[in-house]
Amino acid sequence: MNKQQLFEQIQRKKSFLCVGLDPVMDKLPKHLLKYNDPILEFNKQLIDATHDLCVAYKPNTAFYETRGVKGWDTLVKTWAHFPKDVFTIADAKRGDIGNTSAMYAEAFFKEESSGMSFDSVTVAPYMGKDSVTPFLTYQDKWVILLALTSNEGSKDFQTKQSESEEQKLYEQVISTSQQWSDSNQMMYVVGATKPEEFQNIRRLAPDHFLLVPGVGAQGGSLSAVCEYGLNSECGLLVNSARSIIYASSGEDFAEKAREEALALQQEMEQILKAANLI
Amino acid sequence: MNKQQLFEQIQRKKSFLCVGLDPVMDKLPKHLLKYNDPILEFNKQLIDATHDLCVAYKPNTAFYETRGVKGWDTLVKTWAHFPKDVFTIADAKRGDIGNTSAMYAEAFFKEESSGMSFDSVTVAPYMGKDSVTPFLTYQDKWVILLALTSNEGSKDFQTKQSESEEQKLYEQVISTSQQWSDSNQMMYVVGATKPEEFQNIRRLAPDHFLLVPGVGAQGGSLSAVCEYGLNSECGLLVNSARSIIYASSGEDFAEKAREEALALQQEMEQILKAANLI
Repeated sequence: MNKQQLFEQIQRKKSFLCVGLDPVMDKLPKHLLKYNDPILEFNKQLIDATHDLCVAYKPNTAFYETRGVKGWDTLVKTWAHFPKDVFTIADAKRGDIGNTSAMYAEAFFKEESSGMSFDSVTVAPYMGKDSVTPFLTYQDKWVILLALTSNEGSKDFQTKQSESEEQKLYEQVISTSQQWSDSNQMMYVVGATKPEEFQNIRRLAPDHFLLVPGVGAQGGSLSAVCEYGLNSECGLLVNSARSIIYASSGEDFAEKAREEALALQQEMEQILKAANLI
Repeated sequence: MNKQQLFEQIQRKKSFLCVGLDPVMDKLPKHLLKYNDPILEFNKQLIDATHDLCVAYKPNTAFYETRGVKGWDTLVKTWAHFPKDVFTIADAKRGDIGNTSAMYAEAFFKEESSGMSFDSVTVAPYMGKDSVTPFLTYQDKWVILLALTSNEGSKDFQTKQSESEEQKLYEQVISTSQQWSDSNQMMYVVGATKPEEFQNIRRLAPDHFLLVPGVGAQGGSLSAVCEYGLNSECGLLVNSARSIIYASSGEDFAEKAREEALALQQEMEQILKAANLI
């Protein structure tokens, strides 16, 4: 999916919601345990209940790998269940030397190899250019580069204040990576827990989409993110995982997930209208 | 495997060789294609032919993920074939927010969950402390943190010279991460292509084991690495992948791999003797 198509979906659905599919066996509604693959059933019902309200799905690979071969099988089958009109994100945070990153790109982009072809993959920037560029050789596929993450540990390196007044690491990542590709194939991860940084980030990357985790369970605020984060093509994909997928642990889990997604979609519709984007 | 046990294996085998198991279907000896899982057969024969000459094996997960569910199955079965006296490294370069890194730790350390229990996993430091510490809750399991990698892209952020004379990023990673654990559970990745940095790294981390990729195909020199890299418990695991596993593409591939491994082991034995470590 290219940038224009993504913006069209946002306008059509009046939403820039991304649903994080991070299922944990212990938290599944009990009635699903009778299925051969309870997590797949959980994901499929969540997708069926929310796909008209969100523009993206983001399974985090850790939640699948933890179950070994079975988990990887669930990930492939979950990918196969995504409707064609959603933007799909493999939240894998990969990155390695060039020839190895090319293998990861095949794993997430090349269906003939791995059985999956996501629209995008999250990539860690630590290893620099040649760890990122192999993902950029696929047409209409995206790299979503970690810039400023939502966790406490982001203070260890990403935002560490240098004694001189040079760029922080996350600012260097945003600046340097723009030499590798543009806003048509690259996005940045920016945590919702750092709304005060969005103004600064928009100065460095006015045209890029930002993938924003941390709204909901992690404490970030949607309106604070939008105040500086929105651009003329929306430019935001706001992720919510736990508050949607675990809205209920009963048989009504999908219905309750839809209610949570709908509340966010309606809030987003108001924001998009106020910004004259729909 | 703990640090003392690792050093004992190094002394017993007179080797600090790590063999990188990074198999690509196109490069396999043709006679293996008749097997149901040619890559598993390739790995098993390589392990059988080299395990008395090396102290560690390091499969890079990218080379398995690229084949989807089948590849993940090969990785689990390769893990099951490792002898008990080798140190095993999941070269996965993972790292995510705390509760998600805990899932990755289960994926690579907890056999009941994933079918695998490696001794160690490589971790990317970009997301800071809470992305690393969940891996440290397993006894005698290790984090091998990316510090100074062997690739060209390491210049983009890791070694970027700041205008002031502050620490480079990779130096910050080594210093800061020592607040999270010590040399009994943490190692660092330092590329063999940067021998001039080893003196500096040993100043920052005198007691830590360093995992050193980049000898062989990537151009790094063993003797240059050892000049400053060795410490009183050896302190080095030197990885070689392509030059061993692709030593021959014929039916004699395992025999030729053994010859390559033996040449490196003999070079290492001389180095260990010269340093009075055996």
